[in-house]
Amino acid sequence: MADAPATDPAQAAAAAAASPSNNPSPPTGDNGGDAGGEKQSKKGAKKAEAKAKKEAEKARKAAEREAAEAARKAAGGAAGGEDLAKDNYGDPNHTTKVEAERVHLRDLGEEHVGKSVKVRGWVQNSRMQGAKMCFVELREERNWAVQGVITASAEGKPVSRPMVKWVGALPLESFVLVEATVQKPLEPVKSCKVSLYELHITKCYLVARGPEVLGLGLAAANRAISSFDDEEHPAPAASAAAAAAAAADGTTAVEAAREGVEGVTLDGVPAASMITHLNNPVMHKRAPVQQAIADVRMATRKLFAEYLDSQGFVQFEPPCLIGAASEGGANVFVLPYFDKTACLAQSPQFYKQIEIAGGRKRVYCIGPVFRAENSNTPRHMTEFTGLDLEMEIEDDYHEVQDMLEKTLLYIFRGLAERCAEQIETIRAVYPSEDFLLPEPGKEVRLTFAEGQRLLREEGPEEFRNVSDFEDMSTPQEKALGALIRAKYNTDFYVLDKFPEEARPFYALEDPADPRVTNAYDFFMRGQEILSGGQRIHDPALLEARIRKKGIDPNSPGIKEYIDVFRSAGVPPHGGGGIGLDRVVAWFLNLPSVHLTSYYPRTPKRLLP
Amino acid sequence: MADAPATDPAQAAAAAAASPSNNPSPPTGDNGGDAGGEKQSKKGAKKAEAKAKKEAEKARKAAEREAAEAARKAAGGAAGGEDLAKDNYGDPNHTTKVEAERVHLRDLGEEHVGKSVKVRGWVQNSRMQGAKMCFVELREERNWAVQGVITASAEGKPVSRPMVKWVGALPLESFVLVEATVQKPLEPVKSCKVSLYELHITKCYLVARGPEVLGLGLAAANRAISSFDDEEHPAPAASAAAAAAAAADGTTAVEAAREGVEGVTLDGVPAASMITHLNNPVMHKRAPVQQAIADVRMATRKLFAEYLDSQGFVQFEPPCLIGAASEGGANVFVLPYFDKTACLAQSPQFYKQIEIAGGRKRVYCIGPVFRAENSNTPRHMTEFTGLDLEMEIEDDYHEVQDMLEKTLLYIFRGLAERCAEQIETIRAVYPSEDFLLPEPGKEVRLTFAEGQRLLREEGPEEFRNVSDFEDMSTPQEKALGALIRAKYNTDFYVLDKFPEEARPFYALEDPADPRVTNAYDFFMRGQEILSGGQRIHDPALLEARIRKKGIDPNSPGIKEYIDVFRSAGVPPHGGGGIGLDRVVAWFLNLPSVHLTSYYPRTPKRLLP
Repeated sequence: MADAPATDPAQAAAAAAASPSNNPSPPTGDNGGDAGGEKQSKKGAKKAEAKAKKEAEKARKAAEREAAEAARKAAGGAAGGEDLAKDNYGDPNHTTKVEAERVHLRDLGEEHVGKSVKVRGWVQNSRMQGAKMCFVELREERNWAVQGVITASAEGKPVSRPMVKWVGALPLESFVLVEATVQKPLEPVKSCKVSLYELHITKCYLVARGPEVLGLGLAAANRAISSFDDEEHPAPAASAAAAAAAAADGTTAVEAAREGVEGVTLDGVPAASMITHLNNPVMHKRAPVQQAIADVRMATRKLFAEYLDSQGFVQFEPPCLIGAASEGGANVFVLPYFDKTACLAQSPQFYKQIEIAGGRKRVYCIGPVFRAENSNTPRHMTEFTGLDLEMEIEDDYHEVQDMLEKTLLYIFRGLAERCAEQIETIRAVYPSEDFLLPEPGKEVRLTFAEGQRLLREEGPEEFRNVSDFEDMSTPQEKALGALIRAKYNTDFYVLDKFPEEARPFYALEDPADPRVTNAYDFFMRGQEILSGGQRIHDPALLEARIRKKGIDPNSPGIKEYIDVFRSAGVPPHGGGGIGLDRVVAWFLNLPSVHLTSYYPRTPKRLLP
Repeated sequence: MADAPATDPAQAAAAAAASPSNNPSPPTGDNGGDAGGEKQSKKGAKKAEAKAKKEAEKARKAAEREAAEAARKAAGGAAGGEDLAKDNYGDPNHTTKVEAERVHLRDLGEEHVGKSVKVRGWVQNSRMQGAKMCFVELREERNWAVQGVITASAEGKPVSRPMVKWVGALPLESFVLVEATVQKPLEPVKSCKVSLYELHITKCYLVARGPEVLGLGLAAANRAISSFDDEEHPAPAASAAAAAAAAADGTTAVEAAREGVEGVTLDGVPAASMITHLNNPVMHKRAPVQQAIADVRMATRKLFAEYLDSQGFVQFEPPCLIGAASEGGANVFVLPYFDKTACLAQSPQFYKQIEIAGGRKRVYCIGPVFRAENSNTPRHMTEFTGLDLEMEIEDDYHEVQDMLEKTLLYIFRGLAERCAEQIETIRAVYPSEDFLLPEPGKEVRLTFAEGQRLLREEGPEEFRNVSDFEDMSTPQEKALGALIRAKYNTDFYVLDKFPEEARPFYALEDPADPRVTNAYDFFMRGQEILSGGQRIHDPALLEARIRKKGIDPNSPGIKEYIDVFRSAGVPPHGGGGIGLDRVVAWFLNLPSVHLTSYYPRTPKRLLP
C-alpha cells in the first residue's frame, strides 16, 4: 500500500492556503465545449467542424511539443535531462496499477486525511495556476466531485513541472486514475460537492482520453431544457466551429471550447434544447441532474414493487408481442411476424386479468407499453413504462382504490425520504415546490360528478356548463387540480365513478347507476397519472357491454378475451395502470416526461 | 363475527369419522373435463361440442329442478314447505357478505380449530356421499387446497338437503365464498395440501360459476407436458363431445366430464401437449406446477436484482424500439414507425454501454428482448427476458466474470432456500436431480481451448478433431457438460477466452493473444445461459475491429455507437447477458423454456 510520499501536515496546510477554495472567485463552473456557435448553414457547420478538428489536432500537437520542451527545461535543473516524475503520469496503454487504498468520493472522511488513496474519475474542470500548479476537479458519479491539486516540487518528484502541465492539458471529460493524499482545505471548496477534503495528486494516469472539443459541455448539459420540439436536426457541430475561430487567434481549441460559447445558439435551435441533448447522449447522461432524475425514477419503480410485495402481490411478465390489438385498432404498432401480423401491446390489461383468472390473487407488472400516437406533447411518448396491478375484490371495489392510493402515498413518502439529495440536485436546475400530500386519513376522493360541479360552481367561466356524463378535457383537469389544491391543500387526489361513455368495454357499470362506472382516475398536480377500476368478470355481462360499445364479440382478440371468463369461474377483480414517466415528471414538476425517460421515444425520435 | 352455529366437538368428531380422509380410497384426484375425446374430424368435433352444450344445459336445468324438488320434500319434514337453509347458499347476484374471520388456507392453524372462518376459493373436486353429505375440495392458490364437508342436519338448518345437493352440483372450478367451522380430521387428508384441518361448511355462495365442461381439467393441466410442437390447432372440443355421449346414457354432462376422459387423445395431438395448454390458458395457469414455476421465475428475477443492488449497481431501462438493428440485420423484427422504420431490440448491449459512458459505474436491466428467428426448439422464443449487467473494469476483466459468477451462485442458493416448496411441487410433475453447484472457492473456469482439449481427449469419437479457434456446436457443449460434471461434480461452469471469430465486434481481443477474446460463456447442465466479456472502449480500436469484421463503421446504428466512445472518455468496462427463461428451465431441468414463460412467443404462437 501507499507508495506515495508521506505528507508533512504543515506543508499540506500551506498548499491548502494556496488553493482557490480560499479565493473569492473559484474556477468558473463553465465546463465549456457547449453546443453553441455562430449562426450558419448546416453545410457551413460541417466544413467548420472539419476545420476545427484539424485546428484542434494541431493545437494538441503544439501543446504536446510545448510540454515536452517544458519537461526538458525542468529536468535540466534537476537530474541531467530526465523527468524524475515520468513514471507518475501518462501511460497511453493504461496498464499501470496504483496500490493505494481505493476510496469512493462519497466515502471520503476524516479517517482518510493525510493518507494516500486511489481515485478514478472524470476531469470535469481544470485550471493552471502559474507553471507549477494546477487545480483539477475530478467527478466520480452524479455530482460527486472533489478538488484535486497538483504542484511541482523543487526536486521534480513525485511531481515535476511537465507533469503539472500534462495534467493541465488533459481534455475535459477524460477519465483518469489518480493517486493522491487527502487533505483538508482551510475553507470548504464551494465548487465541489466534496467540499471538506482536497486531493493532493501524486500520480495521474490517463485511462480514456476525452475529445478535444465536447459536443456538449457538462455545465450546459446540466442546465434546464426548455425546448422539447424534437425535430431531428443533424448533430450540432457549431461549437467546434466556434472553437476553430477562437483557435485562429492563438488560443488552443480546448481553451476556446471552455470559454464564451454559453448562450450562443445554433441555427434556430436554442442551446438548451432536448435535441442537442439527445444528439449528445453521453454528456446528457453525465449531467448530475439527469442522473438524479434517473435515481428518482428507479426509486419509484422499487417503491412500487416493494409495497406490493409486502401486500401479497406476485410480479408477472406480460408479453409485448400480441396477436391482436388489445384495446381497439387505433394507436397500435403493427409488424410482420413470420406468416402472421403482430401488434405491440398498448397495455397489459388483458394479461393481468388472465393472471387473476389463472388463479393468482394479486399481481403486478412493470414493463414497456407502446402507443403509435402521433402526439408531440410533453405528456406523450410512443414507448413508456407502465406500473400495473390487478387484484381480486372480496367485498367492494374500493379495496382496489385503497390499494392504489396507499401504493402511491408509499411512493411519494419514500421518494421524499430516500431521494432527498437527488431532489435537491434536480431543484437546483428545475425549481419546484414540494408535492403536497393529503394528511393521513384525509385523502381526497371526489366523484366525477362532484368534480364537474366544483368546476361549474367555482371554476373558470368557460367550464360553467360541463356535464356529469361527458369526459373531461386536459384544460378542465388542470383547472380542477388548481381548485382542489386551493380547497384541500393537496396535489394528489382521486376522481371516482367516471361516466360509462368515458370508459372502455371491460369497465363495470355501477349496479346502482349504469350511467357511471366503478372506475376512477388518479391525478397529480391536475394531470392524470392512473386509470383504474373494477372489471367485468361475468362473461354474459361482458359480452353484452362489448356489443353495447359497438364491438363484435367474435372479433380477433376480443373472442379470446371473453373466452377467458367462459373457461372457468373468475372472481370479481379490479386494478389500475400507472404511467411511471408521468409520476416522476409531475412529482418533480418537470416540464416534460421526456426528461424522465432513459431513451425517450417520440414520433420523431428513435435514436440513440 | 360468526353468525354460524357453534360446533359441538362430539358432533364434529362424528362428522370427521365419516370423512373420506379415513377412507382408504379418497376422492379420485381426477378433476375431469380433460381435453380428451374420441377420434374425429374437426367439423365433427364442432358439431359434437354444440350438441354437448345443449345436453349440458338440459342436464343443468334437470338438476336444478331436481334440487328444487328435493328442497320441497326436505322442507316438508321441517317447517311447512320452507327450505330453512335457503339464506345460507346460492346467491346468483353474489352480494351476500360473510362476517366470520377471513382466513387464508396457508395460515390455518390450531388457533382456528372450533372457530367459524370465511374462506374463498375454487371448487377443485366434489363428491356426494349419499343424499345428506358432500365432500368438496376448495383451492385458494397454487396447491393450497383443503377438504370441505357439508352435512344436512335433521332440522334442515344451517344446512338442508337441498343445500348439500346444490353444493354437490356446482361445476368444477366455480369460485365460492364459504363460511365454515375448522375441525381436525381423525387422520390427515391425503388429497389436500392442508391435511391437518377440515372445513365444516355452514354457508356457501356462488361468486363465479365454472363452465359445465372444462376445456382442460386441473389434474390434466398439472401433468407433465411432453409435446412442444406448437402447430396452432383449433381449441380442443372433443371433451365436450365425449361428455355429450356420456350424457346420452343418463349421467349429467358434469359427471361425465369428470370421468373416463383421461388419456383420450385428440385427433393426432396428445393430451399433454403445449397446444392444449396454451389454448386453455386459464386452466394451464391454475395448475399448481405452473404457478410454482412462475414463483421460481420471479424469485430468480428478484435475487438477480437484490444481489446487484447490494453491489452498488443501479437499474435502468433500455428501449425496445430502436432506430437500427443493434447486432446485425438477421433475426430482427422490423416495423413501420411513422415516416421511419423501427426495429425491436435484440439485446440491451449498446444501451448498457451508453449508461457506462454516461457516467454510471454499474448498471443492470431486466426486460424483454426480441429475436425474429424461425427456430422451433425447446431453447428458443421470439420474445424473452434478459437479465443484463454492465460495469466499469478497474484492473482486470475478471472482475466482471467474478461478479456474474457470484450473482448466479447467489441466485441458485437463494432459489434452493426460498423456493423449496415450489421445487417440490415441480419435481412431482417434472422429476429432476439437484442442480450441482461447485464448492465455494472451487468454481470451475476453463478456457475455451481447455474445454476443447477435454472434448478431444475424453469426449465422444466425433469430437476428436475440434479446434481451439472455432465455436462449439450445441452437441459439443452438451458433451462437454457431461465431462465436466463427471470430473468436477458441478452443473455450473465457465468457459473463458472464446475465439475471436466466435465473438461480436464489440468484444475486446486478448492483448496477449488476439486469436482469442476477453469473453466467456456460462453454462448450466451443458447449455449456455450467459455470454459476457470485456468491451472495446477505445473508439479507434473499436472502429478497426468493426472494419475487420467486415462491417461499415458508417452504417446506421454503428456510427452512432462508435460516436459514443468518441464523444467523451469512456473507462474500460464489461458485462454479460443472462437468459432468464433458460436459467429457470435448466435449473429445474424442464423439457422446454416455453414452460417457464408466462405467455410463450414462438414463430407459430402469438396467443393468448
